[in-house]
Amino acid sequence: MIKKILFNYYGLKELLDFLINTSKEVYNTIKPIIGSSLASEVIGKGAGGDWTMRIDRLAEDVIINSIKKQNLSCIVVSEESGIINIGSKRDFYIIIDSIDGTTNAVRGIPFFCTSIAISKSNLIKDVCTGVVLNLWDGTIFYAEKGNGAYMNDKKIKTSNRVLLEDAIIGIDFSKAEESIVNRLKPLFKKIKHIRHFGANALEICYVASGLIDAFIDIRRVLRVTDIAASYIILKEAGGLMLTPEKKEINSILEPTQRVSFIAASNPVIYDEILKNIKK
Amino acid sequence: MIKKILFNYYGLKELLDFLINTSKEVYNTIKPIIGSSLASEVIGKGAGGDWTMRIDRLAEDVIINSIKKQNLSCIVVSEESGIINIGSKRDFYIIIDSIDGTTNAVRGIPFFCTSIAISKSNLIKDVCTGVVLNLWDGTIFYAEKGNGAYMNDKKIKTSNRVLLEDAIIGIDFSKAEESIVNRLKPLFKKIKHIRHFGANALEICYVASGLIDAFIDIRRVLRVTDIAASYIILKEAGGLMLTPEKKEINSILEPTQRVSFIAASNPVIYDEILKNIKK
Repeated sequence: MIKKILFNYYGLKELLDFLINTSKEVYNTIKPIIGSSLASEVIGKGAGGDWTMRIDRLAEDVIINSIKKQNLSCIVVSEESGIINIGSKRDFYIIIDSIDGTTNAVRGIPFFCTSIAISKSNLIKDVCTGVVLNLWDGTIFYAEKGNGAYMNDKKIKTSNRVLLEDAIIGIDFSKAEESIVNRLKPLFKKIKHIRHFGANALEICYVASGLIDAFIDIRRVLRVTDIAASYIILKEAGGLMLTPEKKEINSILEPTQRVSFIAASNPVIYDEILKNIKK
Repeated sequence: MIKKILFNYYGLKELLDFLINTSKEVYNTIKPIIGSSLASEVIGKGAGGDWTMRIDRLAEDVIINSIKKQNLSCIVVSEESGIINIGSKRDFYIIIDSIDGTTNAVRGIPFFCTSIAISKSNLIKDVCTGVVLNLWDGTIFYAEKGNGAYMNDKKIKTSNRVLLEDAIIGIDFSKAEESIVNRLKPLFKKIKHIRHFGANALEICYVASGLIDAFIDIRRVLRVTDIAASYIILKEAGGLMLTPEKKEINSILEPTQRVSFIAASNPVIYDEILKNIKK
């Protein structure tokens, strides 16, 4: 039903182009203040619970204005502003994390992105289009359900590495409780190349493009808004994103919803990882 | 005595220029094969114990040939080739890690570097000049004892952040034994922004330039060749690098020597980190 409306009114290709252009507009807008004290000025608290900095607001304003200018009718789910109804028909959901990796952005560390996704319902499993743009160098990752995933204009696919000893694996365990660290200990011991660059959406796109082999965050603190776009990009690139209980992620798309997940390049390495996480 | 010889025969400024030019030559040489299967071809085992890949060898050949062409007389300490005597007088030491972050380089992850240092003796405390060049984007960090540290042509200094809650802190604990993870647990819980980009020399330069606030590796597996250049860059930028026992690092410059250290932007955050590492 919603799918029909989507196609009738806008067309998926048209919406993908819209997301790509909007993310490029974010890139051009925030470029001048990266690494500056202006960027890090705190201007309020976001719907997701974190402080909103000027750079987050600037980026979000670009996206919201772009949606309005296009006369789209939708429900926006944003880490900063919460849920915003735009237009009267509300045909679909747009899920935005205007800047993922804000801490990197305000310090000038070259790894942060913008993330925009479209979903047919308020469930992450219905996300059908996603765009993640690296706001440092402009590299863009995107995917549409059924049509594969792309980095710039090149089709991407996940790696086929299966051994933890050879793999590069991202893990976010910032502020992790002792119980989380204990669960991860066997994994720490086995992985030769642990990484964490500091922008989870972009790190999941690294898995999608085969640059790394998995990305893990089992703290249940990451917001669903952060991963909506990279979720579909990873899946379309041949990867999988499941909970640490080996279940589909089935979160409601709300700014306060938190997720735990293992994003893996293939099912074999997913199982290898799971074997090395204590229950 | 050695200091006198150094000045007589070459001049420190001349040697710094030599290191800068050599590192740029490494950059230009390896650029074409970054992220390719050619780069990752294993061609032997290095003196430090790791496998040598083609990209490591290519980079090291550039440096060794550059030293020979310049008719320098010195003792080269290299992760790949071990100790090489060049010339007859052997006035000083050149410590090289031709590529730090080889795994990133062969996968195409944009974070790896070359590291070259000069020391007046075979002890790290006598390192007097260091150059670290980011082999992805060409950014160069360098320092001479007593003359400050620079990123490209701009003087750099470390951050004055002191709270772990605000800080960005790099930790390398790849393949860490359970005992190491246990020691770090209190730290994991307190740090909001943990990072590991995958090239320790460059990460120490991130501390030097204030991009991050500390970098920790207490596994005692990192080689002294990896950190010789960034050691002097950090110190000249106002930071400190001490052991987890709060002692000066006093390693012999040999490819098999391993170090444990906390590289911190200032003494207050060093103490904060130390307080949160179990004995």
